[in-house]
Amino acid sequence: MQSARLYEYKQPLKIEEVQIPKNLNGEQVLVKVGATGLCHSDLHIINGDLRNIIPINLPITLGHEIAGYVEGIGRYVPEDILEKGDLVVIFSGWGCGVCIYCKRGDEQSCNSVKWPGIMNDGGFSEYIIVPSYRFLIKVDKKYSVPVHELAPLADAGLTPYRAIKKVKDNLGPGKSIGIIGIGGLGSYGIQYAKIFSGGASVIAFGRNEQKLELAKNFGADYTVNIKDKNMESIQREVNSINDNKGIDIILDCVGLEETNSIGINSLAKGGTFLIAGLLGNTIKIPTFSTVVNEFKISGCLWGNYNELREVIELAKKRMIKHHIQKFNLSEINEAINQLKNGSIIGRSVIIP
Amino acid sequence: MQSARLYEYKQPLKIEEVQIPKNLNGEQVLVKVGATGLCHSDLHIINGDLRNIIPINLPITLGHEIAGYVEGIGRYVPEDILEKGDLVVIFSGWGCGVCIYCKRGDEQSCNSVKWPGIMNDGGFSEYIIVPSYRFLIKVDKKYSVPVHELAPLADAGLTPYRAIKKVKDNLGPGKSIGIIGIGGLGSYGIQYAKIFSGGASVIAFGRNEQKLELAKNFGADYTVNIKDKNMESIQREVNSINDNKGIDIILDCVGLEETNSIGINSLAKGGTFLIAGLLGNTIKIPTFSTVVNEFKISGCLWGNYNELREVIELAKKRMIKHHIQKFNLSEINEAINQLKNGSIIGRSVIIP
Amino acid sequence: MQSARLYEYKQPLKIEEVQIPKNLNGEQVLVKVGATGLCHSDLHIINGDLRNIIPINLPITLGHEIAGYVEGIGRYVPEDILEKGDLVVIFSGWGCGVCIYCKRGDEQSCNSVKWPGIMNDGGFSEYIIVPSYRFLIKVDKKYSVPVHELAPLADAGLTPYRAIKKVKDNLGPGKSIGIIGIGGLGSYGIQYAKIFSGGASVIAFGRNEQKLELAKNFGADYTVNIKDKNMESIQREVNSINDNKGIDIILDCVGLEETNSIGINSLAKGGTFLIAGLLGNTIKIPTFSTVVNEFKISGCLWGNYNELREVIELAKKRMIKHHIQKFNLSEINEAINQLKNGSIIGRSVIIP
Amino acid sequence: MQSARLYEYKQPLKIEEVQIPKNLNGEQVLVKVGATGLCHSDLHIINGDLRNIIPINLPITLGHEIAGYVEGIGRYVPEDILEKGDLVVIFSGWGCGVCIYCKRGDEQSCNSVKWPGIMNDGGFSEYIIVPSYRFLIKVDKKYSVPVHELAPLADAGLTPYRAIKKVKDNLGPGKSIGIIGIGGLGSYGIQYAKIFSGGASVIAFGRNEQKLELAKNFGADYTVNIKDKNMESIQREVNSINDNKGIDIILDCVGLEETNSIGINSLAKGGTFLIAGLLGNTIKIPTFSTVVNEFKISGCLWGNYNELREVIELAKKRMIKHHIQKFNLSEINEAINQLKNGSIIGRSVIIP
Repeated sequence: MQSARLYEYKQPLKIEEVQIPKNLNGEQVLVKVGATGLCHSDLHIINGDLRNIIPINLPITLGHEIAGYVEGIGRYVPEDILEKGDLVVIFSGWGCGVCIYCKRGDEQSCNSVKWPGIMNDGGFSEYIIVPSYRFLIKVDKKYSVPVHELAPLADAGLTPYRAIKKVKDNLGPGKSIGIIGIGGLGSYGIQYAKIFSGGASVIAFGRNEQKLELAKNFGADYTVNIKDKNMESIQREVNSINDNKGIDIILDCVGLEETNSIGINSLAKGGTFLIAGLLGNTIKIPTFSTVVNEFKISGCLWGNYNELREVIELAKKRMIKHHIQKFNLSEINEAINQLKNGSIIGRSVIIP
Repeated sequence: MQSARLYEYKQPLKIEEVQIPKNLNGEQVLVKVGATGLCHSDLHIINGDLRNIIPINLPITLGHEIAGYVEGIGRYVPEDILEKGDLVVIFSGWGCGVCIYCKRGDEQSCNSVKWPGIMNDGGFSEYIIVPSYRFLIKVDKKYSVPVHELAPLADAGLTPYRAIKKVKDNLGPGKSIGIIGIGGLGSYGIQYAKIFSGGASVIAFGRNEQKLELAKNFGADYTVNIKDKNMESIQREVNSINDNKGIDIILDCVGLEETNSIGINSLAKGGTFLIAGLLGNTIKIPTFSTVVNEFKISGCLWGNYNELREVIELAKKRMIKHHIQKFNLSEINEAINQLKNGSIIGRSVIIP
Repeated sequence: MQSARLYEYKQPLKIEEVQIPKNLNGEQVLVKVGATGLCHSDLHIINGDLRNIIPINLPITLGHEIAGYVEGIGRYVPEDILEKGDLVVIFSGWGCGVCIYCKRGDEQSCNSVKWPGIMNDGGFSEYIIVPSYRFLIKVDKKYSVPVHELAPLADAGLTPYRAIKKVKDNLGPGKSIGIIGIGGLGSYGIQYAKIFSGGASVIAFGRNEQKLELAKNFGADYTVNIKDKNMESIQREVNSINDNKGIDIILDCVGLEETNSIGINSLAKGGTFLIAGLLGNTIKIPTFSTVVNEFKISGCLWGNYNELREVIELAKKRMIKHHIQKFNLSEINEAINQLKNGSIIGRSVIIP
Repeated sequence: MQSARLYEYKQPLKIEEVQIPKNLNGEQVLVKVGATGLCHSDLHIINGDLRNIIPINLPITLGHEIAGYVEGIGRYVPEDILEKGDLVVIFSGWGCGVCIYCKRGDEQSCNSVKWPGIMNDGGFSEYIIVPSYRFLIKVDKKYSVPVHELAPLADAGLTPYRAIKKVKDNLGPGKSIGIIGIGGLGSYGIQYAKIFSGGASVIAFGRNEQKLELAKNFGADYTVNIKDKNMESIQREVNSINDNKGIDIILDCVGLEETNSIGINSLAKGGTFLIAGLLGNTIKIPTFSTVVNEFKISGCLWGNYNELREVIELAKKRMIKHHIQKFNLSEINEAINQLKNGSIIGRSVIIP
């Protein structure tokens, strides 16, 4: 089978023939990949940014947003759960199953988690072995959700979902929510913000008019272009949107010091700043206003199995819009370059 | 001024001339009534159902869903808060201001609460004295919300709001919410269920096709007509709607043993049965299935000032639909009869 | 090995020789039973009360509160997790692992759950097969917690823990919590009520002075003997305890109509009635006071793996007191009779 | 009457004769001060740190932690609420009563709040006018709580209470909570941490052995002296306390960059860093570990009326220990100097 593998940091992926795994142990399932999303985290890995933080052994097949079809089933998979040809999304938080995080359903936070495409071989490949049927979500074909729309839900469509779910109880009439960065995550985040708004205003922040236009199509009530603007001018714009009250919840999908700063400076009293983006090093928060306004700051990592299940429910009901650019596996390095340049609108997906 | 007053239980209201209050003490505000909603609770009071439960002294001017215009302002009302002619909704939970309930914002639950139209003279009158500016919500006229649409928000539009807000965090993709009884409360309840659904299905239960039709227009995804149907047939219908999973949240706006039973028997595992309707005497819950399924049952009373403020925010954004039948103050006994007969669709409002 | 088995409803258990299971499949673990608690649910099963509700195939080895020692380990159990001789508590909610309940950590609520001693052979036996290492909690022997103290934690010590954890956020200074029924569950419930009280008063309700004495030793601030007393006299006693405010949270470990009624009639405004006991058929709740006081009623079933883990943490810290009566496996029918008669104080435990 | 007033920043307070207020308007109450706590915020004000942030008009009588006795009562104070001589604690969040914060019970967060001793004349005086009976909490004298123990509860005893109440639902067996800084706030914080621990470990961090000793007496299970230690050595100590899991909740009562850093670096996965101290300028949080570990950071400001009521409930039950140093009003500048030098253990209180 063809796989796109990372042999050396900062180098293009190598597309090469790898043997299809044969013997399936215990609860393992072999999945024929239908589509795999390309994520900013892939850029981080290729760039070597995570090499001292996460145990990565080169060479490795990248790709952690994977949907496909069941091809082979291990003997300890319970009967009647899966059959060959089933359409499945792969949940990538392959946890140990017994620790305190796994047992509360947050397998993605397991201390000994294996993420495919990061610690195990991933989805930029024709096939992938999943260690247990417990990491698959079957999608009934009667809903006609295309496989390339399912793949990005496993991360880009999941991370902002979990983030917004954490705070959705604080949304409602008279409130507001902002999303900073309308890329892969943000383009889904805008939609969840709208779905869970309960009448709150939804505001998109970005630097690219085309992406802000997408945000409007995906549910934003207002957009703020932050390119080449200073904080005063951004705040004036925010204030004119919502009567000087500040924004109650802001999700930063970028994570640079600049976007952190825009977020924290735009918060309403009692507001929450959610951070899912990883581009920066340090979040700097002013002590006095944080205490006096009782600000909350909250890190957001990926999502869990049930959250992915809920995202897929939305997809099945056609409540999620997608803007997807498809690339063949052979074009993966081109897709990587476009993502680096910021020229991908929405999500790019690799079709093996 | 003309007021409609209850002199004797089970008798028509007497419309008579009463003197307009003159001297305003302390924080008092005199409001010229624009419209006052007619509520099932008014029928209870007229019928004498509450005479041993709540301290009511006859004669009394009924009416507790009141919107109108500021006419006079007491000398201890802070400057710049109100001026003559301001459009206001009256929050009717006139609490003591210092007890544990008032101080957490639930003035409607104060042990020594005064409800206008129940313990104090109410809104079926040309004027009403409100004991403090702290019980008024000003509505900027620039939003052009008609006064007769504001009045019912003070109870019919508020009670289901609080009820659904209690549980909205449990709504979302793959979940479902049912509203039983599409009268005054239910016709607003359906809309809040939709606004806070987060992708959950909204199901209306009623006995009147015209009201169920209204429910559809107001956001219900499904309707179930329960008239002349037994439990098995209702459950079959519910099961066909949502894959036999049961309904996660059910709000009973009627409160009869029959509707309680439909609600509790339709609950999904872990589901919540909210009860706002007062027509019955005893809620009967099966012990075994309540324990094994961890059902929750929760009584819902009116709403608080901030919740009313949020409802008004929705109205200002034109996110609430209304179906209102207007009556003049002189026609109030006719309106009462129609409400008794079940022939009011939506809410009836008295215009003095 | 010797096992105590139910062959016929309403008959004594038969103690007989059964073959020790040999070949362990997949993730299975063979546990040498150290102690197994005897529970009221065992009486229900023996009496046939559940025969139309839960799929039970006779004969069956009863016993679902089990602690013991690892004896054999299946080949797909990950290395380094368990070794022969390890002291373990068996979590009895053997769920499917992928449904919405299992994936949020509530395996005990799985629709296809297998409970040992109810649907599978249980712990009144020398050995038991556990289907996966994921249902075991290892207890480091350095804490010196005796195995017969661990066994009852799996149900009697777990069910009230989950119940009180649901509501503990509402406890605190000025609040109160009552436990009705000081048997197996209640004697642990009193302790959790105290541990999570945050300054709230803890009140024990029972019919047996010896058990109420135990409640005092285990942390109750007040006791109320309900035997031969009518509701007025019980309420007078409750009112004298807490200034007529009612009790904020009441956990009914009995579940009879009489205890339900005591609970609901003693609730404070906004109070919660938790029900874990299964002895009654119907919980009857007065409609008017439930709505006006916004009462909450909540069914409570067992607990999940992490909750059991937390209970064991308390045991390791010696924060749980026990009152345990030990019986040999051969005396099990005698223990059953004593439990029926109400003469067991605390929990009885069977030692095979 | 004698009052201690600030005439010029960075200068000693001037003790001078001021006229006792005579005519009481509306809901006003005149209180004869029994004791007023001296707070770090007083140092900030004297130092001029807040002059550009909060509207302060000199000269002003400082002091915002006040308990005393009712002396005069305005004519619109409802009858039977207060009488001359009543022992009262003054709640200092004098809000407008109608904004969204006031109406949810958080008057201390009102945008137009008047804090006595900061915007209005405060408690370092023989008498003080309180604008409404709604800002007083009466303490029945039968509980025999001394007035000098009540005064510090209004801020030092309230701020950590609110902070810990925000997160107490996450405490419990196997968890841990740390308090940094064992001064006025921290010495109460340790006690609330213990009261709400639910079996969690309580760890005190400080630089002064005498204060850490106090922390042990007040409920800390462990103490860590951070003086002259680097982060590695502090973390080794923390790790040895709780099996390398990190600390689930940390409340920083100091707020310097150094203590922020100790707090954030000691957090367990999913942990919360609460900040109540105002000594620093910027909280610096590492982006990657905040996201990957889903850390939460939360500012904490004072407390609300009901929270103060709960704190007083604890005091009435004798569940709060105090370490108080008393000074006469004439010694106030000496007390200020000692607080500056860090030589006050617990709280200093001024007796007029």
